Amino acid sequence: MSDLVSWWDACKSTWVEAAMLKLHGYFRSSAAFRVRIALNYKQLAYESIPVHLLRDGGEQHGASFRQRNPARQVPVLEDGTLTLTQSLAIIEYLEETHPTPALLPRDAPGRARVRALALSIACDIHPLNNLRVMRYLKSPLEIDEPRRGEWSRHWIALGFAALEATLAQWDTTGDYCYGDAPTVADCCLVPQVFNAQRINCPLDPYPIIGRIYEHCMRQEVFAHAAPAAQSDAE
Amino acid sequence: MSDLVSWWDACKSTWVEAAMLKLHGYFRSSAAFRVRIALNYKQLAYESIPVHLLRDGGEQHGASFRQRNPARQVPVLEDGTLTLTQSLAIIEYLEETHPTPALLPRDAPGRARVRALALSIACDIHPLNNLRVMRYLKSPLEIDEPRRGEWSRHWIALGFAALEATLAQWDTTGDYCYGDAPTVADCCLVPQVFNAQRINCPLDPYPIIGRIYEHCMRQEVFAHAAPAAQSDAE
Repeated sequence: MSDLVSWWDACKSTWVEAAMLKLHGYFRSSAAFRVRIALNYKQLAYESIPVHLLRDGGEQHGASFRQRNPARQVPVLEDGTLTLTQSLAIIEYLEETHPTPALLPRDAPGRARVRALALSIACDIHPLNNLRVMRYLKSPLEIDEPRRGEWSRHWIALGFAALEATLAQWDTTGDYCYGDAPTVADCCLVPQVFNAQRINCPLDPYPIIGRIYEHCMRQEVFAHAAPAAQSDAE
Repeated sequence: MSDLVSWWDACKSTWVEAAMLKLHGYFRSSAAFRVRIALNYKQLAYESIPVHLLRDGGEQHGASFRQRNPARQVPVLEDGTLTLTQSLAIIEYLEETHPTPALLPRDAPGRARVRALALSIACDIHPLNNLRVMRYLKSPLEIDEPRRGEWSRHWIALGFAALEATLAQWDTTGDYCYGDAPTVADCCLVPQVFNAQRINCPLDPYPIIGRIYEHCMRQEVFAHAAPAAQSDAE
């Protein structure tokens, strides 16, 4: 482990530090995890500012955070005087302002495929399983814990089945979702698999997703973005 | 109305017809509505292929449609041999392949703002209120109709409150969500307001959203993309 840490520190010391980025996030947030992967891949140094989503009723509901993001959600990325919200909009911004290494292919059809994979997670799976939705199911809807777990696993299973079929169909699938380098699709896939494992969603039916996830997690860029590697991890 | 129709026909006759686009959609689908607005704004002729989401258990579940999109969702856009899914990925593709007139600002901060607005609808509101989620609430969760209505209005109210606060905060808000020309944010906003009206979600608390919506709907580009204007409208 110490070898990895020194390798990582050596990498970080070479990063562009000119304009310090500030990432408001939470170690367990899938959406913040996506942005951490993108920042790591692009070797952009950033200051991590934890926003505890559970403590004191949720720091995201406090006046100072709401001023930054009225949607009361992490991540928020500050780049100088700019305040950016929505993980995929943030990653597209990083791609436009720091294009190398790229997180999107260069050709329009390839970019469309990668964005479709990313959105199939960001729109079709993740929004149904986040904190505020699980809370609403509990109250006022009075859905008990076993049925809330079923709910989460149902949407992940539906989404992963479609994603697996798509990855099996496309000849662009490689070590990663698209070819042999990370894209924004992998930035979304890895946090979603993390989340699926946490709620005991079986992953055996999705061998391609599983293989890509394992490959990603062997890379420092992904491993160092994981929840347990964050300063606010519990 | 006949004047409008003839104006519209005159416009369409000048459109680029070189590569006929095919849009698989459903008149009432918000996501298909977004793509129709983008196609209209860019004056791209397309063949509309209705996929009835309710008839015979849903045509999106049929083998031929699933081959096209394993996620069993509309819209799907065919551009020659390319098959594109996910409304926002489709619109980004159209933006890259037919950049004028633009649906995104030219500067990275502006693009990030517009994408954040679009994603705040596409990720935070729409996924919670679509057909398959409303069905799961009914069965197996046995949530009755009044509480399903409350569910829908709850997520729209939360999302619109955040969007209204953001639009009020930003000096880039104009006749449209960003400045005085349509962007991908308006492509998402208008179908979501349509949906909100359909389920009797009060819109009085969101005067900026209401003003932008009314302005959009006075434009042919939006009006002709609306559900009632589609060939499969019931």
